Amino acid sequence: MKTKGLYCFLVLFFLGFEDCVQGRLLAASKPDRDAAAAYARWLVSQNSWGILNTISIELEGAPFGNVVSFSDGLPDKSTGIPYFYLTTLDPTARNALQDHRSSLTISEYPLGTCGKADPESPVCAKITLTGRLVLVDANSEEAEFAQTALFTKHPEMKGWPKGHDFEIFKLEIEDIFMINWFGGPKPLTVEQYLNYKMNKFGVSL
Amino acid sequence: MKTKGLYCFLVLFFLGFEDCVQGRLLAASKPDRDAAAAYARWLVSQNSWGILNTISIELEGAPFGNVVSFSDGLPDKSTGIPYFYLTTLDPTARNALQDHRSSLTISEYPLGTCGKADPESPVCAKITLTGRLVLVDANSEEAEFAQTALFTKHPEMKGWPKGHDFEIFKLEIEDIFMINWFGGPKPLTVEQYLNYKMNKFGVSL
Repeated sequence: MKTKGLYCFLVLFFLGFEDCVQGRLLAASKPDRDAAAAYARWLVSQNSWGILNTISIELEGAPFGNVVSFSDGLPDKSTGIPYFYLTTLDPTARNALQDHRSSLTISEYPLGTCGKADPESPVCAKITLTGRLVLVDANSEEAEFAQTALFTKHPEMKGWPKGHDFEIFKLEIEDIFMINWFGGPKPLTVEQYLNYKMNKFGVSL
Repeated sequence: MKTKGLYCFLVLFFLGFEDCVQGRLLAASKPDRDAAAAYARWLVSQNSWGILNTISIELEGAPFGNVVSFSDGLPDKSTGIPYFYLTTLDPTARNALQDHRSSLTISEYPLGTCGKADPESPVCAKITLTGRLVLVDANSEEAEFAQTALFTKHPEMKGWPKGHDFEIFKLEIEDIFMINWFGGPKPLTVEQYLNYKMNKFGVSL
């Protein structure tokens, strides 16, 4: 831990504190706040976890949030589509198989790039991708792509118990709600979001 | 920023890296994982933000998560009940006024106390409080208590625009889902959670 601390400390004097959160260097700098598609794709690709929401079977249809890890592709093959590694031992996967309605909510706050802004401030960006949470066919090329993306970003997943029957799910996005400054949600269509091209540094091509 | 970095660096060698996240010292150490009520109350009182879920009016009943700040009381008057400062300019408050069903999901990950565990790992705790998201009567003692709690934890809120009509909401908890180790959710009733007493250091009295 102290080695990581020393590394972090050295980085501070070159890049500033905001670029060093939990020992990790951010690969890409924050896009301009008016470039809505770029900002949204940056927020999704830079984050490694969020809250995945489903309609609860056990709690009479309540909206049920759960902490999940995700990946939208390798750094140089980011797609904007969040993939998950879930087990039906957990209510989220069970809920989704019965009712696909879902959303994934991600905050900029854990990235450490919000300065002194409060987590609820519009200056600290937040995005909610709403759509259908569906199982990906385990024998498809998409499943292979998603598993590589997930295991690269979350190496621990490789060792999760085989007996727990983890499977790959994805969120088919139908609506995007993003606030990254004052003035309400940024206008952004799913097409604009998905068609945005990034290079491995998260910069527009 | 460099001063904060230096402060953090010095702290590292006394307390270890996990105790220093975004320049903030954690007030209380993590309770034993088998003390479910203590752990849950620690997780809620130490965190400053989470994802608040409601049933979306605009998105055909989809579960809609939103990043919010909250407080469950002053450090020495923690209640376990999360209070929020919301405006109906935002969909979450509008949704709640029409359908109270709601959940608040919080991760241990941003506290920096999960070591190297993945955010989805059961070793990195997660809690979902499900219940009814309701408006608190603005003229009540409870509203006064909640506003002090919110403004103390989130000083920026004091300056949020009066014209946006922010109001205090609370989650009336009906169910608790918490995972903080292997073996599935920890058995924990709402009564056990609410009746747990903490001192200002988050330690049982």
